[in-house]
Amino acid sequence: MADRVARWRAEGNDVVVVVSAMSGETNRLIALAEQCQAQPTGRELDVLLSTGEQVTTALLSMALHSRDCPAVSYTGGQVRVLTDSAHTKARIKNIDHERIQTDLGRGNVVVVAGFQGVDEHNNITTLGRGGSDTTAVALAAALKAQECQIYTDVDGVYTTDPRVVKGARRLTKITFEEMLEMASLGSKVLQIRAVEFAGKYSVPLRVLSSFDEGPGTLITLEDQSDVEAPVISGIAFTRDEAKLTVAGIPDTPGVAYRILGPISEANIEVDVIVQNVAEDNSTDLTFTVHRNDMARAAEILQNTAESLGATEVRSDDKIAKLSIVGVGMRSHAGVASKMFSALAQHNVNIQLITTSEIKISVVIDEKFLELAVRALHDAFELEQG
Amino acid sequence: MADRVARWRAEGNDVVVVVSAMSGETNRLIALAEQCQAQPTGRELDVLLSTGEQVTTALLSMALHSRDCPAVSYTGGQVRVLTDSAHTKARIKNIDHERIQTDLGRGNVVVVAGFQGVDEHNNITTLGRGGSDTTAVALAAALKAQECQIYTDVDGVYTTDPRVVKGARRLTKITFEEMLEMASLGSKVLQIRAVEFAGKYSVPLRVLSSFDEGPGTLITLEDQSDVEAPVISGIAFTRDEAKLTVAGIPDTPGVAYRILGPISEANIEVDVIVQNVAEDNSTDLTFTVHRNDMARAAEILQNTAESLGATEVRSDDKIAKLSIVGVGMRSHAGVASKMFSALAQHNVNIQLITTSEIKISVVIDEKFLELAVRALHDAFELEQG
Repeated sequence: MADRVARWRAEGNDVVVVVSAMSGETNRLIALAEQCQAQPTGRELDVLLSTGEQVTTALLSMALHSRDCPAVSYTGGQVRVLTDSAHTKARIKNIDHERIQTDLGRGNVVVVAGFQGVDEHNNITTLGRGGSDTTAVALAAALKAQECQIYTDVDGVYTTDPRVVKGARRLTKITFEEMLEMASLGSKVLQIRAVEFAGKYSVPLRVLSSFDEGPGTLITLEDQSDVEAPVISGIAFTRDEAKLTVAGIPDTPGVAYRILGPISEANIEVDVIVQNVAEDNSTDLTFTVHRNDMARAAEILQNTAESLGATEVRSDDKIAKLSIVGVGMRSHAGVASKMFSALAQHNVNIQLITTSEIKISVVIDEKFLELAVRALHDAFELEQG
Repeated sequence: MADRVARWRAEGNDVVVVVSAMSGETNRLIALAEQCQAQPTGRELDVLLSTGEQVTTALLSMALHSRDCPAVSYTGGQVRVLTDSAHTKARIKNIDHERIQTDLGRGNVVVVAGFQGVDEHNNITTLGRGGSDTTAVALAAALKAQECQIYTDVDGVYTTDPRVVKGARRLTKITFEEMLEMASLGSKVLQIRAVEFAGKYSVPLRVLSSFDEGPGTLITLEDQSDVEAPVISGIAFTRDEAKLTVAGIPDTPGVAYRILGPISEANIEVDVIVQNVAEDNSTDLTFTVHRNDMARAAEILQNTAESLGATEVRSDDKIAKLSIVGVGMRSHAGVASKMFSALAQHNVNIQLITTSEIKISVVIDEKFLELAVRALHDAFELEQG
């Protein structure tokens, strides 16, 4: 990493590096905390965990010095990264970049501890795990950087998971909106918050490998002039969800709320929601939750179903959700029918459908997932790009 | 430690705790640094090492919370402990104790990271190893604390090393001056700087064991009214020194400077210095240095001796230095003769003698050290107190 940073600077770039804790360090610190307090106090946990990144800033600066590359390290508080006071999940409110600008002007590489800040009373806060990406994007926005490069363990964003489709192709470019849909659907390359932040402040984001050279994938604002943009960019999927159905509910106003309210109160997150009215005026409501929450959700539904006079509660965790994502589908009719036809040709039965402007998702039987992903990758000619 | 702090507070005390890094942590961090840079940059080393104490503050606060004892942790920079910019060996310039006072007023135990501060540009500094004692004393002075308790691995200050004299007795009380003489002579209970600081600001200091209960030893200003004070308080000794002699030097002005100047320029610290003029007007100059420096010092002396026309350079590392310390000797004649007579009775030959107001030191053959310490412990009846 030091080699790469030193080279970047030698090529004439001003470089600010945001670092995470070393591998295993955060877990080591959490284990120490739990020895001292069963439920560690948020404020103190932040004081503890923020040391992980601080250690890395010092070590990287030393490694740069040993390569004759001038460098200076800062904690979040020193920068200063001002956050709200929500310990362990704070949000950045403002970044004072004056000191960093001065250091860059003096020819220094500036190494900043990610994942942390201070609130207005100078208490140490952390942004929650993975928050280093957010720090990097926020700093890039504040400094009006040309590009914010996120180094990960993959070399870019792919049209779909290469473990499922051999011909999956690394995308040169993807829009923020597409990236958000891809990320939230299981292609977990980047923290969603970092992508949202980058989109909001129009910071060009590049995903690169920490281990290999290569251009990675650039995440940008939609290029309106690019008429040759492909209709769809990628296929995302997840096996993490389970499906629940309440069937035969007398269709009266407020049914959806009466069913989903108790689920939400139990802090269970709901993803897809579909409701259909049958001819006899009864209705079925189906939704998906994380697989780990299925049993709990089903228990809650039993009570609700009885009070609503519903006929049945069904649950199924042998499902998968699969989505095609692309800003191109906005202006191209027939994307949905092409998707459904490709699935039909392979006898993949669709259990649920939901759509957004740049995404179509279907829930199918888990056993058909790989088949369906390959069929769609072919149908939309993603291998060719 | 948390049990003890919680109990102190439950008894109605306002408690500020200054913590060190956990055992082994500083060495672990230094090893990491040396992997990144052969001679780690001071500024970055401070950023790195200061995390050690920060971790402990968070963990102790959590442990207090789990005992229903309200507590809040601060780094040196948060307090704020203002130091000069001498990285890795900074000195405290000022302590802003307003925030701590506010927290104490709210009923909190305040846990402060020792060993660290920030300079006027908010760069993290450290006070050098063992500096946590100094932080504690400086804070106690700033807060006008009733007492500053230093928890160590011994339960107090003894009349001499209990491993050498079975009857060595823990002192209830000792003056700062005596403590300074004892500490610098090898009874390494406390950092000298912390004792100096405590003396300068009249902070009562108590040395206690981290592991056992007990009143420890109180270090205070000299109690002038205490006419019953013992003549001597303790016997300190060290085997860390070596003796060098330049013999047969023609006695001309400036000889001592011409001999010791080059030693000091080589950053070798000199302890005892004794010079005698013989009848033939030649002179011998003898001094002691740390044993590790003897070879280097002898080499330097060879050059000097030749240019001075001295007859010989001798060196000896089989020596020990032994001192009796006590403010009582100021007003009691005959302490020196009692010491010398006790040594003579046991046939211990004295090689060098130096004296200060509250201390008499002798250099003797190393092999007589234990015998001499026991003889003096008896002669001055230290066992009885």
